[in-house]
Amino acid sequence: MTYKSNPSFVLRGVDHTAFEERSVPKVGPHDVLVEVKKTGLCGSDVHYLVHGKIGDFVVKSPMVLGHESAGIVAEVGTKVALEPGRSCRKCEACKSGRYQLCPDMVFAATPPHDGTLARYYSLPADLAYPLPDNMSLEEGALMEPLSVGIHSVANLGGFRSNQSIAVFGAGPVGLLCMAVAKALSAARVIAIDIVPERLAFARSYAATDVFLPPRIQEDENKIDFSKRVARQMCAELGIEERGKQAVDLVIDASGAEVCIQMGIFIVKIGGTFIQVGMGASEITVPITLLIAKELKLQGSFRYGPGDYTLAISLASQGKIDVKALITHRFPFEDALKAFNTNRTGVGPDGKGVIKAVVDGPRD
Amino acid sequence: MTYKSNPSFVLRGVDHTAFEERSVPKVGPHDVLVEVKKTGLCGSDVHYLVHGKIGDFVVKSPMVLGHESAGIVAEVGTKVALEPGRSCRKCEACKSGRYQLCPDMVFAATPPHDGTLARYYSLPADLAYPLPDNMSLEEGALMEPLSVGIHSVANLGGFRSNQSIAVFGAGPVGLLCMAVAKALSAARVIAIDIVPERLAFARSYAATDVFLPPRIQEDENKIDFSKRVARQMCAELGIEERGKQAVDLVIDASGAEVCIQMGIFIVKIGGTFIQVGMGASEITVPITLLIAKELKLQGSFRYGPGDYTLAISLASQGKIDVKALITHRFPFEDALKAFNTNRTGVGPDGKGVIKAVVDGPRD
Amino acid sequence: MTYKSNPSFVLRGVDHTAFEERSVPKVGPHDVLVEVKKTGLCGSDVHYLVHGKIGDFVVKSPMVLGHESAGIVAEVGTKVALEPGRSCRKCEACKSGRYQLCPDMVFAATPPHDGTLARYYSLPADLAYPLPDNMSLEEGALMEPLSVGIHSVANLGGFRSNQSIAVFGAGPVGLLCMAVAKALSAARVIAIDIVPERLAFARSYAATDVFLPPRIQEDENKIDFSKRVARQMCAELGIEERGKQAVDLVIDASGAEVCIQMGIFIVKIGGTFIQVGMGASEITVPITLLIAKELKLQGSFRYGPGDYTLAISLASQGKIDVKALITHRFPFEDALKAFNTNRTGVGPDGKGVIKAVVDGPRD
Amino acid sequence: MTYKSNPSFVLRGVDHTAFEERSVPKVGPHDVLVEVKKTGLCGSDVHYLVHGKIGDFVVKSPMVLGHESAGIVAEVGTKVALEPGRSCRKCEACKSGRYQLCPDMVFAATPPHDGTLARYYSLPADLAYPLPDNMSLEEGALMEPLSVGIHSVANLGGFRSNQSIAVFGAGPVGLLCMAVAKALSAARVIAIDIVPERLAFARSYAATDVFLPPRIQEDENKIDFSKRVARQMCAELGIEERGKQAVDLVIDASGAEVCIQMGIFIVKIGGTFIQVGMGASEITVPITLLIAKELKLQGSFRYGPGDYTLAISLASQGKIDVKALITHRFPFEDALKAFNTNRTGVGPDGKGVIKAVVDGPRD
Repeated sequence: MTYKSNPSFVLRGVDHTAFEERSVPKVGPHDVLVEVKKTGLCGSDVHYLVHGKIGDFVVKSPMVLGHESAGIVAEVGTKVALEPGRSCRKCEACKSGRYQLCPDMVFAATPPHDGTLARYYSLPADLAYPLPDNMSLEEGALMEPLSVGIHSVANLGGFRSNQSIAVFGAGPVGLLCMAVAKALSAARVIAIDIVPERLAFARSYAATDVFLPPRIQEDENKIDFSKRVARQMCAELGIEERGKQAVDLVIDASGAEVCIQMGIFIVKIGGTFIQVGMGASEITVPITLLIAKELKLQGSFRYGPGDYTLAISLASQGKIDVKALITHRFPFEDALKAFNTNRTGVGPDGKGVIKAVVDGPRD
Repeated sequence: MTYKSNPSFVLRGVDHTAFEERSVPKVGPHDVLVEVKKTGLCGSDVHYLVHGKIGDFVVKSPMVLGHESAGIVAEVGTKVALEPGRSCRKCEACKSGRYQLCPDMVFAATPPHDGTLARYYSLPADLAYPLPDNMSLEEGALMEPLSVGIHSVANLGGFRSNQSIAVFGAGPVGLLCMAVAKALSAARVIAIDIVPERLAFARSYAATDVFLPPRIQEDENKIDFSKRVARQMCAELGIEERGKQAVDLVIDASGAEVCIQMGIFIVKIGGTFIQVGMGASEITVPITLLIAKELKLQGSFRYGPGDYTLAISLASQGKIDVKALITHRFPFEDALKAFNTNRTGVGPDGKGVIKAVVDGPRD
Repeated sequence: MTYKSNPSFVLRGVDHTAFEERSVPKVGPHDVLVEVKKTGLCGSDVHYLVHGKIGDFVVKSPMVLGHESAGIVAEVGTKVALEPGRSCRKCEACKSGRYQLCPDMVFAATPPHDGTLARYYSLPADLAYPLPDNMSLEEGALMEPLSVGIHSVANLGGFRSNQSIAVFGAGPVGLLCMAVAKALSAARVIAIDIVPERLAFARSYAATDVFLPPRIQEDENKIDFSKRVARQMCAELGIEERGKQAVDLVIDASGAEVCIQMGIFIVKIGGTFIQVGMGASEITVPITLLIAKELKLQGSFRYGPGDYTLAISLASQGKIDVKALITHRFPFEDALKAFNTNRTGVGPDGKGVIKAVVDGPRD
Repeated sequence: MTYKSNPSFVLRGVDHTAFEERSVPKVGPHDVLVEVKKTGLCGSDVHYLVHGKIGDFVVKSPMVLGHESAGIVAEVGTKVALEPGRSCRKCEACKSGRYQLCPDMVFAATPPHDGTLARYYSLPADLAYPLPDNMSLEEGALMEPLSVGIHSVANLGGFRSNQSIAVFGAGPVGLLCMAVAKALSAARVIAIDIVPERLAFARSYAATDVFLPPRIQEDENKIDFSKRVARQMCAELGIEERGKQAVDLVIDASGAEVCIQMGIFIVKIGGTFIQVGMGASEITVPITLLIAKELKLQGSFRYGPGDYTLAISLASQGKIDVKALITHRFPFEDALKAFNTNRTGVGPDGKGVIKAVVDGPRD
C-alpha cells in the first residue's frame, strides 16, 4: 500500500519555519506508522524555534518540530498516544530499566531527529499506546507531559499517599505534577508561581494551597531573598521542617534560581527535591543545608518504563483531567500561530495559554 | 562508688581554651560512664575553636571539646568506641531508621553539649561499642570518622562491589571514604586533592588513581575551570560517562566549590554524588547537568544505624587500616598543641598532620 | 494525684476469665496513663481465651486481655489511639526502622504482658496518637487493625496507585487491607472468601471484584484443587499473569493453606505475596513457581514506623471508613459476651460479627 | 562469506541423543555468529536428557543441548562469554529491568530453542561479552552459572559486605554463590551439604564454615527433623537469630525440602531467603515463622541486567576462581560421556564431578 504525501512543519533555522512535503517515514519490522492527529506544544519546541538549540543539542539541518502527540495507526485505525523516544534497547541504561538515559536515544524534535508535526510518524509498536475508548486524541497528546509529571513525582520522587508536595512553577508540567500528587492521594499540594492567574488556575485544578512570592528587592542577594521568602511562606502556610506539617517532596518545574533555593529551604529534613524545570544552566544552592538536612536532590529527565502506562490509566479513570489544560487549538496550517501563542503566552483570543494543541494535516 | 575528679578541656570563647575541673557526668539507668582514653581531633573541633560557631550552632557558654573517642567503661573495664550522639529515640526520624536527623540530638562538642575531652563521658550503653581484642583504643577513637565514611559510601552512596568511586579531598574523612570503597571491593578508587603529599599518601593507602588539579587561572570563571579540569581529568585517567570506565559514585569531602562542580561533571550518567565535606555555605552547581544525567545528589550527615558496627567489623578484620592515619599523638595536657597542629596542618615535629590523637587525663 | 481503682478483664486460664481489681499501672517519665474507652476484639484475643497460647506464647499467669484500644489521657483529656507495643528502642531492629522485630517488645495481651481491657493502660507518650476532632474513640480503637493493613499493603507490599490487589479472607484484617488498597487508588481490589455474606460486604465496602471458591472435593489433593480453582478464578475475573490484567500484590489474610496456594498461582510474574493471616503452622507451597515467577513472598508482623500515623490520616480524611466494620458493641461488664460473639461469629442479636468493640469500665 | 558445516549434539527424545549436521544459524543485523569452544554442563541439561522435560517445558522435537558457553566471534576473533537468553526487549519485564521474566525469552536448550553444543551459535551482539585477556574460554563458559550466583546473592539477596550467608547445596551453583559472597567480603560463608567430600571442597574453595546434617530418622516428620537439625547446626556453629552471629541471607541451591525448611529456621529475624535450587515442585514450609520473623523469601530465576558484567569483572580480577570447579573435560565427540559424568556424578576417571566442560567441534 502506498501512503499519501507527508506535509510537515519544519524548523529551518532560528525563527525560520516552513511547511515541507517530506517523504513518508520508513517503517521497520517492529514499527507502526501513525497518522498524527494532535500535537501539544512544549517550551522546548519554542526554545528551538527561538534559539536554534538547547544546550549541546543544536539544530544544524531542517528538523520537523513537535513531540507531544497522539494519532491513529495507519490502516489499523487504533487511537494511540505516542512515546516519542526510540532507545537502543541494548545498552546498560536500557537493560537496567532507565532507558531515558540511553546514549543512542532517537527523540522526536531533538536534533537531528524529526518530530511529529507531520502527517506521519513512525515509531516502535510498543511505544504507541492504545487509548481507552473514553479518551480523546487530544487527551492522548497530553500523555507526554503527564508522563514527565509521573516520572518526577511517582517514580523519582517516590511520592506516596498522604504525603505533602510543593511544586514551583504552575505551567503545564508543574500543573501535571500537582495533578499526579492529587491522584496519588496527597495530603497537601502547594503551588508556587509569580503569576496570580496561574495560581488561581492551580488551585481550581489540583492545588490545596498556593503561594505568590513577592518580588525580589533591588540589590537583594538571591539566597537572602529565597531564605526570607521561604520563611514567610512557611509561616503563612503552616509548613514545618518535620512531621505532618512538613513538605515531603519539592518539585521545581520553573527552572528559576530563587525557586530552587526556596525549595531547598522549605523541604523537610530528610526530604526529596526533584528538579524537572530547565532554566539557567548554573545556579547557586545552599549546600550546607543539603548536608544538615541530608536531602536527596535528583534531576528528572523525560520518562522511563511504566510512566506512559500509568499516565493513561490515571487519565482514563478520571483521576487526572488533562483536557482542562488545553486552552488553545489550531489547525495544522496555523502551526506557527500556535508557536507564537506559546512564545508570547497569549493566544490570538487574547487569553493566557496553558497548553496549545495543533491538529494534524487534513486529509 | 565515687569517681575521681573530672579534668576537662574547655572552649570558653573564640581562641580561648582552659582546663577545668568539671563534675562527673550524670549516669542514667541505661547509660554507662566511660573513662575517655583517646580522642581524635576533627575539623569541626578546630572550627569551633577558631570561629566559635558552625552555622547556627554557636558556642554561648563554656563547652568541653572533642567527640572522636574511645575509652574504658568505668568499673567494668571493657574497651569501647563511643558513638557520641544521643538521640531521642521517639521521633519520626529515630523510629524510621534515620536517627542522625533527630531534632533533639545531644551530640558531643556541638553547642550547648559538652564533648569527650575529659576524664569521663556518660552515654547510653548501646552507643558504647565493645572493641574486639585486636583493636587498640587509638583505633577505637577513629571509628567515629570511619563511620562517617561508611555512612557516605556504603549507605547513602549505595556503593557496591566492583564499582568505581572518586573522592575529592584527601583529608581524614576523604581517606576513610576511599578505605571503605576499597574494603567493599571497589574496581577503582580515584583521589583528587591539591596537595601532592596528600595524594601520595592516598595512593599508598587506598587509592588506585590520583589526580592533582591545576590552579585556577586569574579571572577564570569557576564553572569554566571545573569543566575544563574535569575534561582533563577524564582524559588522563580514562574516565567515561558510561560503562566500566565510568565513575559510579562521587564523594566530595573537600567542601570546595570547584571540587563539587568537577564531581558533577565527572560522575556517570545516572550516577550518585554524596556531599559530606563542609565548606562554603552556598555554591554554584551546573543544574541542567543534574537533569540531563538524572543524577542523585545527597548530603551526608554524621552516621546512622549500623554504621559503627560495620566500621568496627571492617577495621577488626584488617580490611581498613585506621592506624595509618594517626600522625601525631599528644598527652591530655597538650590538647591545645594538638588543636594547633590541626589548625596549622603541621605538628611540632614539622610534619604534616592527618589525624592527631589526644590521650585522656592521667590517673 | 491518685487514680481510681483499675477494674480489668483477666484471662486466668483456658476458657477462664474474671474481672479483677488491679493496681493502677506504673507510669514512667516518658509515659502517659490512658483511660481506655474502646477496645476492639481480635482473633488473637479469642485464641488465647480458647487455647491459652499462640505458638510459643503461653499464658502462664493471669493476663489482662485486649490490645486494640483508644482512650483519653488521664488528667490531660486528649483522645488517643494506642499503639500497644513498647519496644526497647536500643536494639538493631529498633534503631534500623523495624521495631516490630524487637526481641524485647512488650506487647499488650501477649504473655506475660497485660493488655488494655482495663480502666487504665500506661504506655510511652509517643505511642499515644492524638485523634483528630472528626474521629471518635471507637474509630481510634480500629487504628490497630488498620495499621496491620497499612503495614502489609503499603509498606511491605509496596502497593502503588493503579496496581491491582487480591485479598484472601474478608475478615477485619482482610477488609482493612482492601480499604488501604482502595485509599491508595487501586485499579482493582479482588476479595476472596468462602462465606458469601462476607463477600457481599467486601464488595459494598472496598472490593471491586469478589470470588467465592467452590468446596474442595473429597480426596482431591489441595495443590490440585488450588491450581484448578485459581485457573477458574482467573478465567472468571479476567486475571492474566502479566500486564494490566495482572494481580500485582496478593495478601493472604486467611491463613488457609489452599488460599496461600491459590494466591501464589494467581499473582503476576515478578509479583509480591504478603502473608499476614495466621493459620496452620506449616503449609505446602508450589516452590518451583516461586522461582519461575521470581516471586517475593514476605511475612507481615504487626506494624512499624509510620503505620499508625498513616492509618489515622487516611481515616480522618475519610479515605478509609473503619466505623462500617463495627457490628457489635458491649459494655465493659459484658466483655465475655463480646468474646463469645467473636468466637462464634454471631452476636447476641443473631447477626454475623465483623468487629466487636468493648467499652472501658464506667466511672 | 560461507561458513563450515555445523555439527550439533542433539536431544531426540528421552535418553536419545545424536550428532546431527545442522544448518548454520541465521544471523540478524544486530547479531553475531559465535564459534562455540567450551560448554559447561548443568543439571538442567541432564534433566532434559533423562526426563525429556522440565516442568511445562517439554522437548517435542529434536533440540541441540547446552547453554553454558564461551567461544570466538566468527571472522572477528574476539573471545566471548555467551549470555544464552534472547529477550524481546519490548515487554514490561524487559523495559523495567527484569528481562529474565520476559514471556518471549528464547533461551538456549530450553524447548523448543536449540542450545550451544554445536559449532555455531547466533546471538545478539550485546549478549556476547568480550573476555579480558587474562580469562580463558573455559572460564568464560562458567560465567553462566556464576551469573546465576550473582543474581541470587548480590542482586535479589542484596548481600552486602560483612554480612553472613548460609548456602544449602555445594554443587556448582551453591559453590558459586559462596564464591560471590566471599568476593563481596562476607563475614561468614556457611556451606551445608550431605556429601562430606563436597563440604571439604567448599571449605577449601569459599566457605568459612561447613555443616553436615545427619540423616533423617525413619518415621521422623520432615519439619521436626529440620527443626531439630537447624537447632543442632546453630549450636555447633554459634548461629544466633540476631546480631553479628546471625545469618543475614540463606540461599537454597539444593531444592531439597528439608534444606529449605532448615534455611527458614536458621535465617535471622528480618532476614532474606533466596530459592535458586530446583527440586520437588511442592514443599512444606513453616509459614508462621515467616510471619513472626517477617522474612523475605524470593525465587531466583536465571540472571538479569548487569549480572554477566559483574561475573566477568570479579573473575578477571581474581576475586572468584571459576577454574577450580572444572573437574572433567571432554572433546565434542564425547559429549554423551560428559552427560553421563554429570548424571552419575562420577567421571570416567572415577573421580567425583563438579563441573564437566565439553569442547566445541574440531575444525
